[in-house]
Amino acid sequence: MKRAIVLGAGMVGKTIAEDLTGDFEVTVADVREDALSRVRGAETVCRDLSSPDEVKRVVASHDIVIGALSSHLGYQTLRAVVEAGKPCCDISFMEQDPEDLSDLAKERDVTVVMDCGVSPGISNLFAGWAAVQMETCERLSIMVGGIPEVRTWPFEYKAPYSPMDVFEIYTRPARIVREAEVVVVEALSDPELVDIEGVGTLEAFNTDGLRSLIRTLDVPEMAEKTLRYPGHAELMRVFRETGLFSTEKISVEGVEISPLSLTAALLLPKWKLEEGEPEITVLDLVAEGVEGGERVRHRWLLVDRYDDASQTTSMARSTGFPAAIMTRMIADGRFASPGVHPPEVPGAVPGLLDEMVDGLHARGVRFERRRDVIP
Amino acid sequence: MKRAIVLGAGMVGKTIAEDLTGDFEVTVADVREDALSRVRGAETVCRDLSSPDEVKRVVASHDIVIGALSSHLGYQTLRAVVEAGKPCCDISFMEQDPEDLSDLAKERDVTVVMDCGVSPGISNLFAGWAAVQMETCERLSIMVGGIPEVRTWPFEYKAPYSPMDVFEIYTRPARIVREAEVVVVEALSDPELVDIEGVGTLEAFNTDGLRSLIRTLDVPEMAEKTLRYPGHAELMRVFRETGLFSTEKISVEGVEISPLSLTAALLLPKWKLEEGEPEITVLDLVAEGVEGGERVRHRWLLVDRYDDASQTTSMARSTGFPAAIMTRMIADGRFASPGVHPPEVPGAVPGLLDEMVDGLHARGVRFERRRDVIP
Repeated sequence: MKRAIVLGAGMVGKTIAEDLTGDFEVTVADVREDALSRVRGAETVCRDLSSPDEVKRVVASHDIVIGALSSHLGYQTLRAVVEAGKPCCDISFMEQDPEDLSDLAKERDVTVVMDCGVSPGISNLFAGWAAVQMETCERLSIMVGGIPEVRTWPFEYKAPYSPMDVFEIYTRPARIVREAEVVVVEALSDPELVDIEGVGTLEAFNTDGLRSLIRTLDVPEMAEKTLRYPGHAELMRVFRETGLFSTEKISVEGVEISPLSLTAALLLPKWKLEEGEPEITVLDLVAEGVEGGERVRHRWLLVDRYDDASQTTSMARSTGFPAAIMTRMIADGRFASPGVHPPEVPGAVPGLLDEMVDGLHARGVRFERRRDVIP
Repeated sequence: MKRAIVLGAGMVGKTIAEDLTGDFEVTVADVREDALSRVRGAETVCRDLSSPDEVKRVVASHDIVIGALSSHLGYQTLRAVVEAGKPCCDISFMEQDPEDLSDLAKERDVTVVMDCGVSPGISNLFAGWAAVQMETCERLSIMVGGIPEVRTWPFEYKAPYSPMDVFEIYTRPARIVREAEVVVVEALSDPELVDIEGVGTLEAFNTDGLRSLIRTLDVPEMAEKTLRYPGHAELMRVFRETGLFSTEKISVEGVEISPLSLTAALLLPKWKLEEGEPEITVLDLVAEGVEGGERVRHRWLLVDRYDDASQTTSMARSTGFPAAIMTRMIADGRFASPGVHPPEVPGAVPGLLDEMVDGLHARGVRFERRRDVIP
């Protein structure tokens, strides 16, 4: 049995690890003892993964690595894994471009699939499929978000993963494609209301989620937006405008402090999902273009909810399962291509998209697929 | 010529000082050299007035004192002035009850009028007059606020006096009177939209401005509300809920910090009125009751704007001139009553209310007065 190691024992890392047990000998590494204690069926090791050398040491005795750390550790960790010569499936929302490590990965002869969650992740597979399926794909819209089922004033939001990554999403400039040009817009911009069946009216706003699709697809109109309950984005714009998300230290009463660190300290407890608190993950992907000579619209809609039986959030399920399925594809060589690849690359390998979708369905993560002819 | 000393060289203190020159030998004391340098026609002395002993020393050679410091220094300063045996007219919005110093003032045989600005201040005079004028006063509503003429996202607000005092207004629990009982409600609560002629639609919310009126008037329904552009109060409620107005220190990245001090550091530059920036002060006071056997509604409306000629904000004018006029009444003995009194007490002295209103009109601060029979 092959040995897999999951770096990060957060909700997503735990979900991946538990999915892999049975098929792999699984180890989970994290510095947080309490997070490790919640993992079932896998070996756990307490390690400070903020040190790349520690990462190299801990992955050495394993056949494949799954990166599930928060965004600020993502890049340095992936580099350490590649330098250690280990194949990897990664889901951290790192700011840097993981493909910068592709030459190094080729040199070390290791296959890496990056951004392998829900979006980026599954959305890339669908987008890649749509771009190939249609003669011309004219427009691609990806909307994704994790929200609590119960809305509470004032934020109507809880963070299904690290709130620091949420602040990152709200501040990182967003690259979108308009009239075939890459345009950089502010995060939280261009809010629009969207009705999602069974969930209600949400608000979508620009965030930097297109990432690799900007380079791999030739679609003249592309945007990724984050979904929240209406009004949340406006509050976040006000917080950003006030300076509360700034990481530049300022001097206050004789101490130096970054406003974001105080904002985080205040919001973390307020944005924490309670144990068993129901939450929802929505992914709404639309691709429009010409197919078989007619104008069509493909739509994939995921509305996934907290799973009571396994006590797993929909965000952990919809982010963790794609990574767990992809890990198997890399480990058994169905996807073997030295380098660092976005998910649309394995998605283009015949059979792998269907297998991914079937695997997700088998785990209860179900997509509704529609194809409409546009009149 | 009598010697008057103004404590505090802010916009209001400066306005009071300049109004008094000619009738008094005026000195202005403050720790801020730059604030002192803007005062015209008065002697200035640089003193740290956060020390009560320093206050006693600096007032010693003067006949009357005007307190125009920010709220957190108000009470200790007034006590020092009374202990020094000096009559005083005060406008600081102190949290403590200045009337606690009344016995001490009687002992030292000095007359003090507190809360002598626009509201509390002029509003107390009108409210006291209305309560005496009517057989029964059933309802008293005071709405007051200072706002910039130009509204800028997201706060649509600039602070015409110390922003720290604005935060104080937004957090101090508000005492109002309902069905003849004193009720404590949250600041920023019970928002309602109000149309002010020539200004537009504003939003009024509970703040703790009734103060002495709760005790001195026998009116079963009384509330004081602060006026801002609509939406501002909601943002402030969100900030308060987030903990951004909390003065309790929390530990962030190894340093202890009060969230309010960081919030203030971020908002102070954003809420600063530019030199010459037009702003508006609105006071809308309504008293309803029975007069001459019929139900009537009295209304006083002040809409005062930045004065280009004197480069004085409406807030400084409408707050400073009442204090300057009252200072003359105390200094020449027209109001002489040892103790600490709210403005409604001198206002009940025959002739003084009319003189106050005439004095304000002469300085361009004009009230529109209406009396309507309620059908």
